[in-house]
Amino acid sequence: MNRQQAIEKTKITHLIDEYLRIRAHSTTLCASLQVEDYTVQPIAEVSPPKWHLGHTTWFFEEVILVKYMTDYSRYHQGYRVLFNSYYKSAGEHWLQSQRGSLSRPTVDEVIHYRNYVDQQVVNFLSLADIDEAVLSLLEIGLHHEQQHQELLLMDIKYILGCNPLSPVYCDQSLGIPRSEKARWRAFDEGIYEVGAINRGFAYDNEKPRHKSYNYGFAISENTITNGEYLAFIQDDGYGRAEFWLSLGWEWVNDKKIAHPLYWQKIGNEWFEFTLHGLMPLDLNLPVTHISYFEADAFANWKGLRLPTEHELEVYLQASSAVAVISEINKRNGNLASIYHPIASGVPFGQVWCWTKSHYSGYPGYKPYQGMLNEYNGKFMCSQFVLRGGCVATPNDHYRHSYRNFYQPHQRWMFSGIRLAQDIE
Amino acid sequence: MNRQQAIEKTKITHLIDEYLRIRAHSTTLCASLQVEDYTVQPIAEVSPPKWHLGHTTWFFEEVILVKYMTDYSRYHQGYRVLFNSYYKSAGEHWLQSQRGSLSRPTVDEVIHYRNYVDQQVVNFLSLADIDEAVLSLLEIGLHHEQQHQELLLMDIKYILGCNPLSPVYCDQSLGIPRSEKARWRAFDEGIYEVGAINRGFAYDNEKPRHKSYNYGFAISENTITNGEYLAFIQDDGYGRAEFWLSLGWEWVNDKKIAHPLYWQKIGNEWFEFTLHGLMPLDLNLPVTHISYFEADAFANWKGLRLPTEHELEVYLQASSAVAVISEINKRNGNLASIYHPIASGVPFGQVWCWTKSHYSGYPGYKPYQGMLNEYNGKFMCSQFVLRGGCVATPNDHYRHSYRNFYQPHQRWMFSGIRLAQDIE
Amino acid sequence: MNRQQAIEKTKITHLIDEYLRIRAHSTTLCASLQVEDYTVQPIAEVSPPKWHLGHTTWFFEEVILVKYMTDYSRYHQGYRVLFNSYYKSAGEHWLQSQRGSLSRPTVDEVIHYRNYVDQQVVNFLSLADIDEAVLSLLEIGLHHEQQHQELLLMDIKYILGCNPLSPVYCDQSLGIPRSEKARWRAFDEGIYEVGAINRGFAYDNEKPRHKSYNYGFAISENTITNGEYLAFIQDDGYGRAEFWLSLGWEWVNDKKIAHPLYWQKIGNEWFEFTLHGLMPLDLNLPVTHISYFEADAFANWKGLRLPTEHELEVYLQASSAVAVISEINKRNGNLASIYHPIASGVPFGQVWCWTKSHYSGYPGYKPYQGMLNEYNGKFMCSQFVLRGGCVATPNDHYRHSYRNFYQPHQRWMFSGIRLAQDIE
Amino acid sequence: MNRQQAIEKTKITHLIDEYLRIRAHSTTLCASLQVEDYTVQPIAEVSPPKWHLGHTTWFFEEVILVKYMTDYSRYHQGYRVLFNSYYKSAGEHWLQSQRGSLSRPTVDEVIHYRNYVDQQVVNFLSLADIDEAVLSLLEIGLHHEQQHQELLLMDIKYILGCNPLSPVYCDQSLGIPRSEKARWRAFDEGIYEVGAINRGFAYDNEKPRHKSYNYGFAISENTITNGEYLAFIQDDGYGRAEFWLSLGWEWVNDKKIAHPLYWQKIGNEWFEFTLHGLMPLDLNLPVTHISYFEADAFANWKGLRLPTEHELEVYLQASSAVAVISEINKRNGNLASIYHPIASGVPFGQVWCWTKSHYSGYPGYKPYQGMLNEYNGKFMCSQFVLRGGCVATPNDHYRHSYRNFYQPHQRWMFSGIRLAQDIE
Repeated sequence: MNRQQAIEKTKITHLIDEYLRIRAHSTTLCASLQVEDYTVQPIAEVSPPKWHLGHTTWFFEEVILVKYMTDYSRYHQGYRVLFNSYYKSAGEHWLQSQRGSLSRPTVDEVIHYRNYVDQQVVNFLSLADIDEAVLSLLEIGLHHEQQHQELLLMDIKYILGCNPLSPVYCDQSLGIPRSEKARWRAFDEGIYEVGAINRGFAYDNEKPRHKSYNYGFAISENTITNGEYLAFIQDDGYGRAEFWLSLGWEWVNDKKIAHPLYWQKIGNEWFEFTLHGLMPLDLNLPVTHISYFEADAFANWKGLRLPTEHELEVYLQASSAVAVISEINKRNGNLASIYHPIASGVPFGQVWCWTKSHYSGYPGYKPYQGMLNEYNGKFMCSQFVLRGGCVATPNDHYRHSYRNFYQPHQRWMFSGIRLAQDIE
Repeated sequence: MNRQQAIEKTKITHLIDEYLRIRAHSTTLCASLQVEDYTVQPIAEVSPPKWHLGHTTWFFEEVILVKYMTDYSRYHQGYRVLFNSYYKSAGEHWLQSQRGSLSRPTVDEVIHYRNYVDQQVVNFLSLADIDEAVLSLLEIGLHHEQQHQELLLMDIKYILGCNPLSPVYCDQSLGIPRSEKARWRAFDEGIYEVGAINRGFAYDNEKPRHKSYNYGFAISENTITNGEYLAFIQDDGYGRAEFWLSLGWEWVNDKKIAHPLYWQKIGNEWFEFTLHGLMPLDLNLPVTHISYFEADAFANWKGLRLPTEHELEVYLQASSAVAVISEINKRNGNLASIYHPIASGVPFGQVWCWTKSHYSGYPGYKPYQGMLNEYNGKFMCSQFVLRGGCVATPNDHYRHSYRNFYQPHQRWMFSGIRLAQDIE
Repeated sequence: MNRQQAIEKTKITHLIDEYLRIRAHSTTLCASLQVEDYTVQPIAEVSPPKWHLGHTTWFFEEVILVKYMTDYSRYHQGYRVLFNSYYKSAGEHWLQSQRGSLSRPTVDEVIHYRNYVDQQVVNFLSLADIDEAVLSLLEIGLHHEQQHQELLLMDIKYILGCNPLSPVYCDQSLGIPRSEKARWRAFDEGIYEVGAINRGFAYDNEKPRHKSYNYGFAISENTITNGEYLAFIQDDGYGRAEFWLSLGWEWVNDKKIAHPLYWQKIGNEWFEFTLHGLMPLDLNLPVTHISYFEADAFANWKGLRLPTEHELEVYLQASSAVAVISEINKRNGNLASIYHPIASGVPFGQVWCWTKSHYSGYPGYKPYQGMLNEYNGKFMCSQFVLRGGCVATPNDHYRHSYRNFYQPHQRWMFSGIRLAQDIE
Repeated sequence: MNRQQAIEKTKITHLIDEYLRIRAHSTTLCASLQVEDYTVQPIAEVSPPKWHLGHTTWFFEEVILVKYMTDYSRYHQGYRVLFNSYYKSAGEHWLQSQRGSLSRPTVDEVIHYRNYVDQQVVNFLSLADIDEAVLSLLEIGLHHEQQHQELLLMDIKYILGCNPLSPVYCDQSLGIPRSEKARWRAFDEGIYEVGAINRGFAYDNEKPRHKSYNYGFAISENTITNGEYLAFIQDDGYGRAEFWLSLGWEWVNDKKIAHPLYWQKIGNEWFEFTLHGLMPLDLNLPVTHISYFEADAFANWKGLRLPTEHELEVYLQASSAVAVISEINKRNGNLASIYHPIASGVPFGQVWCWTKSHYSGYPGYKPYQGMLNEYNGKFMCSQFVLRGGCVATPNDHYRHSYRNFYQPHQRWMFSGIRLAQDIE
């Protein structure tokens, strides 16, 4: 083995470690679940955890093993359809809203499937002379896995939260910084650069890095707290049409919405369902599980506005927010990064912030080629961008340029509010 | 202990045995299920098996223990709502279509609940001087449990049958008598008596026994086979409006119905999903999982008609059909009566037969008093009666006067066709 | 011309007169409408009046002229589809719920169509040697026209009644007998004959006349008044599940039903929309525009029940009810029979009475052959029978054996309540 | 009268002329309609023409007369609700989807209402010393009226177009320039100014004028023709998922979309419904009545893209497009500007062009105060911007900065496609 080969081998060994570490984290996140929790789908957009475990495995199988590994044979022909989320170019897929109809494959069978594919990926990486293109797909696959780790926590929370028995996901709670008085950080009018820089991983939709002309603006360093949001409710915010988008007003009235997703009023007191059970509402924690409609109405009530996604990216570049988040998570150790932060709700600075920007392609946007062409671009319609990450986001998945996106009525993700205003 | 007391004690001992035997049968029916199979609800009318196990337990708790046992304390306050099916007088109930949203209580917890309630019922029966009214409620509870045993098999079949992996419920198959050439049995015009006689158990809706004026009619001794039904399909039966009720024609076109529920055409061959897996269609077995719309259209295509429920009851009284069914089941022993008959689809004579009678109260009908007022009468609207029982019906649950009822589009029960005709 | 021919000619002359009289009545009923009133369809089951005028014309064209008149050419090819209500054997038909989407043909064009077809029918009858089968179809066509005359009034009332401006259909009001104290008329247990006798016209669904075994029953000579129904409302009748069918309770809650269709509470007073405008509720008039669900719930609240259709037919045979109704209408002259009775709501004895009988075929029922096979039989599913006629029913359209039928939630027809009870 | 007063009086006289001219145009547009055409609402988003005539009148009554005219009394209290489109701050409003349920007020009554309000506005303007704020509201009211003039033509076309009798709106046809070969006009990277300049009228959503950083781009001078679009269809464009947004693919499959709204294939030939009837498809005319989904899929199929709204505004500023359009319309005289251009479909350059920009507020956007706060801002969610105007747009309603917006599936407006591409 020459030096070049040795370097290559080290790189591959490192990649395999990374692969196994990230893959293992998905099952670790489910360690406290009952088999039944893995299986149900209370609403169409919340998938059964076992489906997530299967789908992320399918991704590696379909994108890498089937295409690049000689003599690879699929674990189960039926899984090709069952665990395809929506990729038309990968053939038929099982209807999203019917994932919870399927009792089989069982959780155990899905775990076997994971183990089989992991073994094959490791074999493939160890033996073959891996092409750069394949390494790039593997990297996407790992980021895809991490996206689903956040989805897993969102969906687990929903599954437990819609259950009148209020089951507990984890016991421990974390000391989280309380929110302080709002401070504004100002930015001058001018041309700014946004979008992914060419180091490190980024999805296609974060590129190309490009110039944007921004007018003078200020961003609040604090996210809105439960206490501030409660004042909106107490001022009849949900009952006054003047604050709401037309579609938002329809939504509030059709669905009888009167508070954030996991809030409950019992007698005269407010509670919030969290991953460590039903807790009295902590007024100093950031409000979370908020739809775009609610975020926008709140901003109007305040006489302020939501930031654009460009403004928020400029702010993130300028601040140490991401660094701080990672720091908090690291300080709590590995276990803590899985269980603790979520346990006590969502700490200050650790909540996805709605922007007023619809989700569209950047100037010069080029979607991935092949099957992954369907990864991002085809959703650029009638959704809004969120920025910044949350406690459920894996630590090494935070990026300034990261663009999360949801429909304006959705709110089962860890979404919150950070305000902006124009300045002269 | 005097003689009277001894007799009473024997009767109670017998009742306790009966109670435990019937209760145990429900869990036995689920013995081959995976935890995941107990949990899902693919369509609103198919309940998760664990819900059935909980609900039948709730029934004894709510109807007997809570009302009549001194110092009884409910196993879990939350179950009062979760396992109430629809009884408005028993307070709130969980939405039927959302039973599959609940991962908790787990299967294990439901089994604990069953065991707790069973222990309490046994204690209650052993110690107390039980009132006749309570014994009567207990009897209804056991028949209720048996109804749900049939529902369990229907729902398990649906849960497995909608899964593209075609899981198997049981392995063994039973030698079932094939259908023979249709023979007609004729009945003269005149007054007939129908409805439950005053010996043995019957639901309120089977009473009172009453006179009915029937014109001369004949009933086929054979139920329609898969082969005969296939001829209807091959004659474009699903494509010709003239055979169908108006609502049936809408249903066929909206839902794109072209064959019985569990049939599948693979290439040029027909298969049928059964509880022992996907099998080639056996043309000599009775057609089953047929809606009223289909049964009625088939009869029209034949130039014949479905019987009324009175005609079918007269026929059952006159024939040994029920006796034969019990005989077949008994011959196969206890285990067989659970697993075997279902295993190979539905044998001749063991299928619920649609009648052309809407489900209404008999002349002089008096519903149960109290909570069970809601048991039957409130469903007397826009449903049709089926008669005769099926392989999934517990042996001692067959009765000539038994009135089963479903909506005209439903077909996940073991329903089939027996024809009738007018005679001079 | 010999004597036989002279008789024949007189008969034809009379038939033509009858045809023209009945056809003219349809347009007379619409005389006070604005063009806009002819055109709209507020809900799927309420058709635009101009559609009724077109459809009844299409019926004669399609059933008689096209089939039997030599060299007949259709008035407009497009009308064949547009004015077909639902007859599959007559080819495609325009979707029922989209009748109100069509601004064309205009009212004037429909009137031209009517005139053309009427002229052709008269020519056909005058010149040809008409077959008995054709005369029979013509008779059905005229009864069909009269059915639509009642529908016209129902639909006009709905169109005006759903308009917040409460437009008036006619000005005059009629002195109607107020309801008196309920008297019961009793009938002994025994065999009764019901169904159409072989004199005079009857639809296929009224035949054959047949024997029915009835237990002793009594029927109220009075229909329920607005005042009696108001007492049900004031006793929280709409809020107590125990009175309602399961589907009825869903309907009440989903649609927020709390009173009969045309009632309005303004301040503390009740009003009723009538064909002569919005009027204070007259407590002594029969309640009307009641669904089966409401009629059944009211009967349960009273501790009584609705009659079966056989009981009501026996009662009608025994009473002079129909005679009285015709008498009232005749007394008021021709014009009055169009405008007056409806003007003041619905008088005592002039309201369709819900029966507890689902709509099914009689023993030995034989549907019409040919296109009219679809007239009645295909609706024998999930509907209930009403008996007796109403103020909107043309005088010579009343029959003891007449079977009207609607879905249990429908109530835009002139439907009310007559109670029954069992007697020993 | 001094000079200042004389100037003022002239200005008012001119304003009154302008008011009457624009108001009269709305009824002129309806001159060829039948009463029935004014009344129907085939789908929720298409309003009855008489409703448009009433609503634009309500706008002047509510925004000006009620608020500013001393002793003004409303024409009819009920119209306040009936003709309110959606302004929550103006009280209740009639449900949009139920506008076609209302036969009253009749067309004649609506015309009386218009005349009454017009007379009052003229009186008000003649006598009072009018405030600038009021004049500004009046100006908005006139632009609002012109918006509805375009909607009137869209809705009339839909009402006639969904009728299988294909009624004709106008007879004459106009010689329209055919499309020529695509030429591209290029623009350099850099900062551009867009948005309304401070001369002339503009809605709040066109302001403020602001800087935008655009990358190099080119815009086609030609809009896509029917012939070019047909090639997309013939290449199975509607059947290939890779070209479609995710929501677009669902729409195409759910609604079975396979061609533009008014196209029909009869035998092997394509026809297009136009305001002068059903015509053979003219391959050289611009394709129109296209949804955003279709426009985007077409661009993807071409390997190009839709322009952003900023790019299109820059292009319009630079080109003489608007001037040319006005020129064409003027050349055809007054009558022509109403009837002709539409008659032959939509000419080159006279079609709204979809942009890839979601509809959002500009940087620094300030909505109107008061009731008109609801005019634009509350719709800034999940819609896309169209630019440029169409043949149905009144001549003096064209503006470079004009932002039209629709939901991505809508296509009953005169919408088409203009392509763009990136350049280095």
